[in-house]
Amino acid sequence: MFRAYTDPDLFARWWGPRRLTNKILKFDSRSGGEWHVIQVDTDGAEYGFRGVNHEVVPPERICQTFEFLGVPGHVALQTATFEDLGNKTRVVAHVVFESVMDRDGMVDSGMRSGADESMERLGELLDELKSGK
Amino acid sequence: MFRAYTDPDLFARWWGPRRLTNKILKFDSRSGGEWHVIQVDTDGAEYGFRGVNHEVVPPERICQTFEFLGVPGHVALQTATFEDLGNKTRVVAHVVFESVMDRDGMVDSGMRSGADESMERLGELLDELKSGK
Repeated sequence: MFRAYTDPDLFARWWGPRRLTNKILKFDSRSGGEWHVIQVDTDGAEYGFRGVNHEVVPPERICQTFEFLGVPGHVALQTATFEDLGNKTRVVAHVVFESVMDRDGMVDSGMRSGADESMERLGELLDELKSGK
Repeated sequence: MFRAYTDPDLFARWWGPRRLTNKILKFDSRSGGEWHVIQVDTDGAEYGFRGVNHEVVPPERICQTFEFLGVPGHVALQTATFEDLGNKTRVVAHVVFESVMDRDGMVDSGMRSGADESMERLGELLDELKSGK
């Protein structure tokens, strides 16, 4: 599970809605490393995201900044925590925004359906990896 | 003013209370760069702080993560914005914490008096630099 968040090839296979394709420009999954990913629409429109990893503690925690470059200057701090439940892993994602307006803007942007779809795709990817595909 | 925030030698001369001495371990003032500073007490006690710069836009803005290593795992996102007022610069510091508890913990730790003392020292440093010392 942790690998799906820190390996750029795996990350590209589940992050975001299915209709968008991820282009990984930077993906240094170490403390202090930068990440920069572009989601490309079928008609070629691009949505950029970038941030830096404040701390990456395998296999427990990733704390990083997050910025949608379509609305630059609005940065969030997000932490994903991984908890081993034996045959499963619980992931808790925690995000703080710089303002309530930023938070509401992100929620209104359709982040929820995008996040739901990401989680669905992540589940499928893990199933594929387990079955050795 | 921007230089006082991004030049490690200048930063060490004003950041924190006077009774503590700053040891700069890392201070890469570029977007994606890391910083790590230790404040040393007169009796040798050390207080570590570290983070990464999400974005540094000279001479306007610094957006970075901030963690006090005495209470690890509690990270804040802070943005300093510099506004040129002619013969002065207005600095606005904006910090978001991961929780209200983290915020209150930081306020209770005496951050306010430390921040006031820092601002006083920063003013003195700028006066010195202007007078060419």
